[in-house]
Amino acid sequence: MEENTRPLILITNDDSIDAPGIHHLAESVRSMGDIYIVAPEDPRSGQSSALSVATPLRITERPSDKEGVRIFTVNGTPVDCVKLAMHAIVPRKPDIVLSGINHGSNSSVNITYSGTMGAVLEGCMLGIPAIGFSLLHHSIKADFTFCTAFVAAITSKVLAEGLPQHVCLNVNIPAKVRPEGIKVCRAAKGHWTDEYKRYLDPSGVPFYWLTGHFINEEPDADDTDEYWLNCRYVTVVPVTPDQTATASFKSITAMFEE
Amino acid sequence: MEENTRPLILITNDDSIDAPGIHHLAESVRSMGDIYIVAPEDPRSGQSSALSVATPLRITERPSDKEGVRIFTVNGTPVDCVKLAMHAIVPRKPDIVLSGINHGSNSSVNITYSGTMGAVLEGCMLGIPAIGFSLLHHSIKADFTFCTAFVAAITSKVLAEGLPQHVCLNVNIPAKVRPEGIKVCRAAKGHWTDEYKRYLDPSGVPFYWLTGHFINEEPDADDTDEYWLNCRYVTVVPVTPDQTATASFKSITAMFEE
Repeated sequence: MEENTRPLILITNDDSIDAPGIHHLAESVRSMGDIYIVAPEDPRSGQSSALSVATPLRITERPSDKEGVRIFTVNGTPVDCVKLAMHAIVPRKPDIVLSGINHGSNSSVNITYSGTMGAVLEGCMLGIPAIGFSLLHHSIKADFTFCTAFVAAITSKVLAEGLPQHVCLNVNIPAKVRPEGIKVCRAAKGHWTDEYKRYLDPSGVPFYWLTGHFINEEPDADDTDEYWLNCRYVTVVPVTPDQTATASFKSITAMFEE
Repeated sequence: MEENTRPLILITNDDSIDAPGIHHLAESVRSMGDIYIVAPEDPRSGQSSALSVATPLRITERPSDKEGVRIFTVNGTPVDCVKLAMHAIVPRKPDIVLSGINHGSNSSVNITYSGTMGAVLEGCMLGIPAIGFSLLHHSIKADFTFCTAFVAAITSKVLAEGLPQHVCLNVNIPAKVRPEGIKVCRAAKGHWTDEYKRYLDPSGVPFYWLTGHFINEEPDADDTDEYWLNCRYVTVVPVTPDQTATASFKSITAMFEE
């Protein structure tokens, strides 16, 4: 029996196995290798790098009608999917981890909350090249047509050349337009504001539901993902799991050690 | 009526309002300001920066027997607690956000999964100095005696001097010893391995439960939190929410733009 030398591609997301985005992603890279889709069985948006510590996880295989594509669901978060896929599903270490295509932006600080990017960071920490893809359109009916060529080109390049150690990619794709091209840029600094809608339940007790809008703290900067998405470019932000604030090392050391 | 000029201290955690660690934290800093404890009503370890997007949140005030301390619970994650506290609980912008004291280490890559640090990053993104405290002992009965002086000293210093913009602190405290002092250091690179225990349910269907052990990828480095915790020091890692991998900017740009 010959050894299988086709790349092994592990695909996950946070919108669940039922979101069209993940199937667009798989289809865009299907010719490049053997595909294992391992995705949450329910939507897990906003799950960041959360993992299930207090509940058991199950794996369920679903039928696949595509050659070279196997499909599994896990009753957990995107990070659970990557960890459990590595432990119990994939036959060898994947050559690449892909996450998405997310229905909605993961630019700027949204990476912090994003389950899509949680899975990507997990792949990266396991030493596997990893890329998250997000389309700037929340709808379940979002049109992924213009994504295909960019997803394929970026994935193919990373499969061929790899990524630096401890670096993964956060790719955002403008919606409803043919992108002008690709820009490598940094994540804009920003935050969310006016974050809850207040209701009264039938007994008159208040409850709150997350909402709010995003504030770009650097609207004039021309080197951020927000800026280039606005110019209709696909943005590629190199991302590291290591959050040590190296630039402030001296000042913090002066505060606490001297 | 005089304006209240005492600092406002917002305290949360991920082990829930019932964990001793959060009450030790509050007691350690009580003399420094007015305390608002806003904590998850249930344990939320490993929740990272997860937020509740699809469920309503409730706030419940609990009686407090300490002057200057108010206590609230939220049926959500640590990040939900900070966001909702800002929106609907605290009377003004807090002067500092404190999280912990976590029952267990948040050194190295554990910051990625930590709900304790999720809350700290959230405070930081809102422009508030923020510190996470963790004791290297998982037990609910952990002894926090040696924490008090370090928690007080670090908090007091940050209240007086602030922190650089977009920088927060991840403080880990060795267990069962009087620490030798404080070291400012970087997060060790590492990962978890052998991560699941496999079971069979009564029908013979497998399920999996998270476990595993931590691998320090840099056991010989003498500038990491793992190294200094091993030397019985309290470690202070300056942390930034911005995960852009600045050092790899050139190589990634060469891959995709040229």
